[in-house]
Amino acid sequence: MAVSDGADVSELAAGVRACDRAAVGRAITLLESQLPGDAAPAQELLAALLDDSGGAHRVGITGVPGVGKSTLIEALGTRLTARGHRVAVLAVDPTSARHGGSILGDKTRMAALANDPAAFVRPSPTVGALGGVTRVTRETILVLEAAGFDVVLVETVGVGQSETAVADMVDFFVVLMLPGAGDDLQGIKKGILEIADLIAVNKADGDDAKRADAAANDYQLALGMTHPASPTWTPPVITCSALTGKGLEALWNHMRTHRRLMTDSGELAERRADQRVRWMHAMLTERMRARLAASVAGLLTDLEAQVRSDRLTPAAAADRLMTAFEGPTDV
Amino acid sequence: MAVSDGADVSELAAGVRACDRAAVGRAITLLESQLPGDAAPAQELLAALLDDSGGAHRVGITGVPGVGKSTLIEALGTRLTARGHRVAVLAVDPTSARHGGSILGDKTRMAALANDPAAFVRPSPTVGALGGVTRVTRETILVLEAAGFDVVLVETVGVGQSETAVADMVDFFVVLMLPGAGDDLQGIKKGILEIADLIAVNKADGDDAKRADAAANDYQLALGMTHPASPTWTPPVITCSALTGKGLEALWNHMRTHRRLMTDSGELAERRADQRVRWMHAMLTERMRARLAASVAGLLTDLEAQVRSDRLTPAAAADRLMTAFEGPTDV
Repeated sequence: MAVSDGADVSELAAGVRACDRAAVGRAITLLESQLPGDAAPAQELLAALLDDSGGAHRVGITGVPGVGKSTLIEALGTRLTARGHRVAVLAVDPTSARHGGSILGDKTRMAALANDPAAFVRPSPTVGALGGVTRVTRETILVLEAAGFDVVLVETVGVGQSETAVADMVDFFVVLMLPGAGDDLQGIKKGILEIADLIAVNKADGDDAKRADAAANDYQLALGMTHPASPTWTPPVITCSALTGKGLEALWNHMRTHRRLMTDSGELAERRADQRVRWMHAMLTERMRARLAASVAGLLTDLEAQVRSDRLTPAAAADRLMTAFEGPTDV
Repeated sequence: MAVSDGADVSELAAGVRACDRAAVGRAITLLESQLPGDAAPAQELLAALLDDSGGAHRVGITGVPGVGKSTLIEALGTRLTARGHRVAVLAVDPTSARHGGSILGDKTRMAALANDPAAFVRPSPTVGALGGVTRVTRETILVLEAAGFDVVLVETVGVGQSETAVADMVDFFVVLMLPGAGDDLQGIKKGILEIADLIAVNKADGDDAKRADAAANDYQLALGMTHPASPTWTPPVITCSALTGKGLEALWNHMRTHRRLMTDSGELAERRADQRVRWMHAMLTERMRARLAASVAGLLTDLEAQVRSDRLTPAAAADRLMTAFEGPTDV
């Protein structure tokens, strides 16, 4: 099947498997394309690459702007490529869709990795809603795995549902925190502790080293108040410094231990299987709602307003919308 | 329109407005009925009562089995009826659907309230899934409000999503905790702190009084680590004893203060409007998924299995299901 840029899907797939960087780039662009004609080839490409995907260690990294995500990814990534790993970096930035920018658009922020032949840095796709961004990112991971990258780092800013979305597409989710304690902790985003596989207090260098330790203790306490998501893994809290390299070794060791334990217990396979099924149902719901919105858009707006102002019960509104959607004969 | 038990909807509505207890009971039974013929009259009844609903102070109460929910509701409820309030008690118990039991089935647990002419105690409906139970409970609240009950207490056990469901149908959500500190806190359910409008450490009597205070301090600390959901309200942590009555006055005062502040700021109206719209969309999604499952059940199971075992991408599965659902000509 031909792609809008003229390429042939099977050729493209072959190029990706050979890790031809141009082919990988074009494959990802195909996934990001919103041209109706590209949807089918994109899915055909993924189907062709499916058997070669799944091999990477998928790691999500989040934290507020200024916590030092890029610096940490750069420091960790270069260490890993130096050891023979092939590292890919992706970004999920729901805001980039809005103001056209991207948290990774400025590649100079990761100069070393961006120019490292064993690394691949891809800025956040600008495909509208978060749902679109995460769909593309999930599928991009598969392409990068087929291209042989064995570590995929997905960076996200802590905006809206982006963390939950990323946590649901990776094997290991790292939450970066700034040094500081007490009141600062009130900045913890709802539910973030529950999805963290590890908390790293970054910038634990110079005068901040002590404050970082204090923060780590507080986060440890806060974590102790939540149920661990896995019987096999209790999320550790570490301090690190992307600047001095402190804690990076510990961070990587925790990731490897987690992977080994989760693989042995079968939880890794289970986690990925659950993620895929949830993703399928999410896309299904999204498509059905879009289908409904398209067919009864006006009625939906009207009835939602009536429900909001308490002139119609939610159940009655849902019934009328379904009736309109399915057609009277169908009810 | 006639109801399966022969009653007329407008008569039934009139009986509810007059707070004829038999009529209220039959109205709720109509909502709980799963007879296809009762669905339309049930919605007609709700539509007829809608203008008279919304007047109650809707309060949710959760806590692990043994924390003393019923005793607290009995103690609080009798105090309120003694002051001229009319109190209704409902239960959301997702487990009752499974083993047929109900957390309120044994009315002797609330003997005083159950026999109080100013109170109305209704056990958990046994209508299958949690979604069904919460639908009925949401609609039952409207009926009880039309009947003039000005305080509706919704009790739920901390099972699955029941707390979130109840928190999303009330104005004020109380989380009951047992005395104890440190390790005990690890029993806190994920996200429960974020939906609490107040935390009450119960059984703060006798030897446990000190432990209750310690627990309250720890919960205060834990709460401090989460964003308050409202700019107007910071969830307080109190200790109480349903046995001695300690703290019940404080509990009720917090509820009244919360109601006043939220009404003045417009947040109460906004919270209820948001709840209704979310409820409508939830029912819509539920109906559409049921509709899809019914029309392509076999394919759904088959494709979900393929996605789980990584033989098919989630996107491809979603596409194929939508195609099957809409019919080829429709794509």
